Amino acid sequence: MRASPPAEPADGRVRGVDETALTRRVAADYVDRLENRDWPGLTALLAEDMVYEMPQTRERIRGRSAFLRFNIDYPGEWHLRVRRVVADGRAAALWLDVRVGAGQQDACAWLELSDSGLISRIVDYWPEPYDPPAGREHLVERW
Amino acid sequence: MRASPPAEPADGRVRGVDETALTRRVAADYVDRLENRDWPGLTALLAEDMVYEMPQTRERIRGRSAFLRFNIDYPGEWHLRVRRVVADGRAAALWLDVRVGAGQQDACAWLELSDSGLISRIVDYWPEPYDPPAGREHLVERW
Repeated sequence: MRASPPAEPADGRVRGVDETALTRRVAADYVDRLENRDWPGLTALLAEDMVYEMPQTRERIRGRSAFLRFNIDYPGEWHLRVRRVVADGRAAALWLDVRVGAGQQDACAWLELSDSGLISRIVDYWPEPYDPPAGREHLVERW
Repeated sequence: MRASPPAEPADGRVRGVDETALTRRVAADYVDRLENRDWPGLTALLAEDMVYEMPQTRERIRGRSAFLRFNIDYPGEWHLRVRRVVADGRAAALWLDVRVGAGQQDACAWLELSDSGLISRIVDYWPEPYDPPAGREHLVERW
């Protein structure tokens, strides 16, 4: 059920670049497998002792099993699309377009990979719309 | 008043790595110069026709002058600290710890650099705390 983690490059000189390329691919695969409800495929990307955090609600999920259950049970017809992946060494940032039914929301996720190239930490932000404060209308346009 | 933009590397082979290193530095300097209210220094990092967007309020600011005015006028004793910088080619993501008086909020910013190494686009998210929905208490811990 679990795919092998990708091998570390043997050549130290290009390690940083290869590491970043791996992280970029893992981050994109993470979204793809969530979107496709590919639970075995998602499992293969995650460290067993991974941690998932949502700072806005101060919620933390410990462990791959609980994180999978959280996603399998997540209510609604949710769909994810990558707006941007930014990878740097073993860290990645994901900018997502999330749809649930007719609703749309952007999300920002911060990923960390372990030594073996598995996702060890995810921190998710779900910024919601709000009304702009008064006093800056002369500087901005609205859309 | 404006510093010269950093030169492009002449060696095509290492361009990707150097470009990322430049982007990483510009992103960190952007936060540093905001925090220090170093307006000439901030000006030197920004393309004249840059665009700043806040999708949560659907607000857009066009141009370096208006963006500088927005920051100079921004109310409160605000302070920024980098939690993480992730840079990849000409794109960067910034994860910030923002303090205004006794209040604390995280922020996520997405930066793009122009051909000449200046910041051409910033998209800011300001995720706010909210109460978690019921039904997942068995999977999460709170902090």
